[in-house]
Amino acid sequence: MIEKAEFEGFEYIEGGVCAAQGFKANGIQCGLKHEGSINTSKKNDLAVIIADKECTAAAVYTTNKVKGAPIQVTRENIADGKAWGVIVNSVNANTCNADGVEKAQKMCELASKEFDLKPSDFIVASTGVIGQPLPIEPIEKGMPELCKGVNYNGNTEAVNAIMTTDTMPKECAVEFTLGGKKCVMGGMLKGSGMIHPNMATTLTFITTDAAVSHEFLQRALSDVIKTTLNMVSVDGDTSTNDMVCVMANGMAENNLIAMDNDDFAQFENALFIVMVNLARMMARDGEGATKLIQCVCAGADSVQTAQTVAKSVITSSLFKAAMFGEDANWGRILCAIGYADADFDINRVDVNIASRAGKIAVCRNGAGVEFSEEEAKKILMEEEITILVMLGEGEFNATAWGCDLTYDYVKINGDYRS
Amino acid sequence: MIEKAEFEGFEYIEGGVCAAQGFKANGIQCGLKHEGSINTSKKNDLAVIIADKECTAAAVYTTNKVKGAPIQVTRENIADGKAWGVIVNSVNANTCNADGVEKAQKMCELASKEFDLKPSDFIVASTGVIGQPLPIEPIEKGMPELCKGVNYNGNTEAVNAIMTTDTMPKECAVEFTLGGKKCVMGGMLKGSGMIHPNMATTLTFITTDAAVSHEFLQRALSDVIKTTLNMVSVDGDTSTNDMVCVMANGMAENNLIAMDNDDFAQFENALFIVMVNLARMMARDGEGATKLIQCVCAGADSVQTAQTVAKSVITSSLFKAAMFGEDANWGRILCAIGYADADFDINRVDVNIASRAGKIAVCRNGAGVEFSEEEAKKILMEEEITILVMLGEGEFNATAWGCDLTYDYVKINGDYRS
Repeated sequence: MIEKAEFEGFEYIEGGVCAAQGFKANGIQCGLKHEGSINTSKKNDLAVIIADKECTAAAVYTTNKVKGAPIQVTRENIADGKAWGVIVNSVNANTCNADGVEKAQKMCELASKEFDLKPSDFIVASTGVIGQPLPIEPIEKGMPELCKGVNYNGNTEAVNAIMTTDTMPKECAVEFTLGGKKCVMGGMLKGSGMIHPNMATTLTFITTDAAVSHEFLQRALSDVIKTTLNMVSVDGDTSTNDMVCVMANGMAENNLIAMDNDDFAQFENALFIVMVNLARMMARDGEGATKLIQCVCAGADSVQTAQTVAKSVITSSLFKAAMFGEDANWGRILCAIGYADADFDINRVDVNIASRAGKIAVCRNGAGVEFSEEEAKKILMEEEITILVMLGEGEFNATAWGCDLTYDYVKINGDYRS
Repeated sequence: MIEKAEFEGFEYIEGGVCAAQGFKANGIQCGLKHEGSINTSKKNDLAVIIADKECTAAAVYTTNKVKGAPIQVTRENIADGKAWGVIVNSVNANTCNADGVEKAQKMCELASKEFDLKPSDFIVASTGVIGQPLPIEPIEKGMPELCKGVNYNGNTEAVNAIMTTDTMPKECAVEFTLGGKKCVMGGMLKGSGMIHPNMATTLTFITTDAAVSHEFLQRALSDVIKTTLNMVSVDGDTSTNDMVCVMANGMAENNLIAMDNDDFAQFENALFIVMVNLARMMARDGEGATKLIQCVCAGADSVQTAQTVAKSVITSSLFKAAMFGEDANWGRILCAIGYADADFDINRVDVNIASRAGKIAVCRNGAGVEFSEEEAKKILMEEEITILVMLGEGEFNATAWGCDLTYDYVKINGDYRS
């Protein structure tokens, strides 16, 4: 397990999307499968989240030109900044199908009937194989059971339903205060392959009982995404279905956040903590991954430069394969820094490699320095590795997260459909 | 083996860099190794090419900010547009070392003494591990034997010396005529990993007996690189040491090419044929690859768009893993088209998959069409696969070459140094 960093004033709690008051969830196996698959797993494939009262909602979506039909429908449904719940399936992405939008609308309609709401009160999402028609019958058949079963501890069934090649559920929730009122924010995420920055990366649903205006909720999400999920890459492939949604039901009774004040800053901090933890879990659980790789680029003359360099390192296939091999082949780190699309003097670059087991300098002023291969090996045997790149040009930092490239990545993706 | 396409007026011949008259070469094992390696292979590690008379020379280099020391030295040495020969080693890249330039200059000096030339008459190149000091002693010791052994059939020993993780030598030569005079152009290439567009990609040395001015030689190379080596990607990593050099000794006695006429066009055609074949061989021999994957993007509104889309497809890890698995997972192709940084209407995109075994349509107007999985499997079992992407927006085409992503890529790169 990777460790969660401590933040003053925030306490990690259990409960995922049900941690905040007034959110129920559930997940079931309705029986979705794709052509040719012999799906004998008992994994859930359909989930719902429902709020006790109408929520303020905000979302960000993939930048891929190919967009899943659910994205189009969600975008329309939350154009008013409001939502009551989420309906989501795995196995099939409902993307590149002629009848995709119709099917996504149908999912909202089916869910809304169970709760006596309007179809447009729902956020809808799908993840799985692209380009196969979504069978609506299993969803239709399973919907009553799914919705009747919602409860305040349903997060576990729900997160199970959104997993695809994920090997572990990804949830995080924190408790904090806003103007003396206890607030909670919690979320769940799925994502393991087809993961690359430029947007939200994968499906993420976050709920909170804090009161916040639509404008400031969207602003917080659009801010925080940049330094969290958008700094993760597993394989350089930007998915067609990426979506991050946040729903806030206001039941914590804090003063409504609708201006740029301390409460908004604290709210953003909470969102950052939830999302950075989910981002790290996602990178650690990258398809086939055995390690979480974190690259911190410090001393840049802009955030942009720091982000570009940090991402370039964690995206390099050669570097990632070396991490799998626990080989301190720092030349590949320098190579990836060198082809990053940013301006800086390569002759001032320092590189350290670190983990719980220690820290070594491998490069100073763009040239190698002697280090103990034995010590390097000890450091690289850990599950969480940090590459520290110091550009020596300014005061801006950024962190990117990725994973190693392993046999299992190839195995999983060499035959994903069946 | 992948097939060579036929071009009217050009005949493939043997001989690589020694195919053109007036070029000798040789390669030996001088004994370079890197720290911790147990190098018991008998592979050559040092090569020389020498012309019978002074050549016009042109080159293109990596765009990586980290540049190998040999690039700096070569750039200075051929600033006058002239060269007599090439000295090149494998095993060690002579990059990110404090004394790199000095060592590269020393290599030129040692070679020049053997031929009674000046150090600046030599192109120098290195390939191998980054960031380990280059031991000059083995090179110094081996140089007399290397240079004494040069001969008009030395291309085989030379190409063997520049290979690193390559599993096969890569040579190509063609015969053609310029104004009734028989001319020959031939080349050798090494490259298997750390291969990605943006420049020359890997080490390539091309020789010809055609007479051409420096200006037009450089122009031909700078043109042809764009549609050949720059359209190859194995792993997205742009190397620090990439270099393509062309040397022309004029011994064919054709009219000097120094203007934009038919002879220049024919000369460019010859360069294209040599380089496109080397490019395809490189992609096919990508680290761990079992297949050559070619993506043709047609119907684009500009060459730029066609190139961007074609490259995006062959660079996608998910698509490459699917090719390894011989899985017609066309959704990944569409996903990669969708995140390509270019403007077009995704709803007009058609995709076919083809090989010697047949052709199937998998996507029309951005949505899937039914196809026989059995037929798809038969097509994908071939060694050379073509993905045809039709944007339906204009008349521009481009082709990019890559390979599948396999267990062996991970194996090779999980432990490259030792």
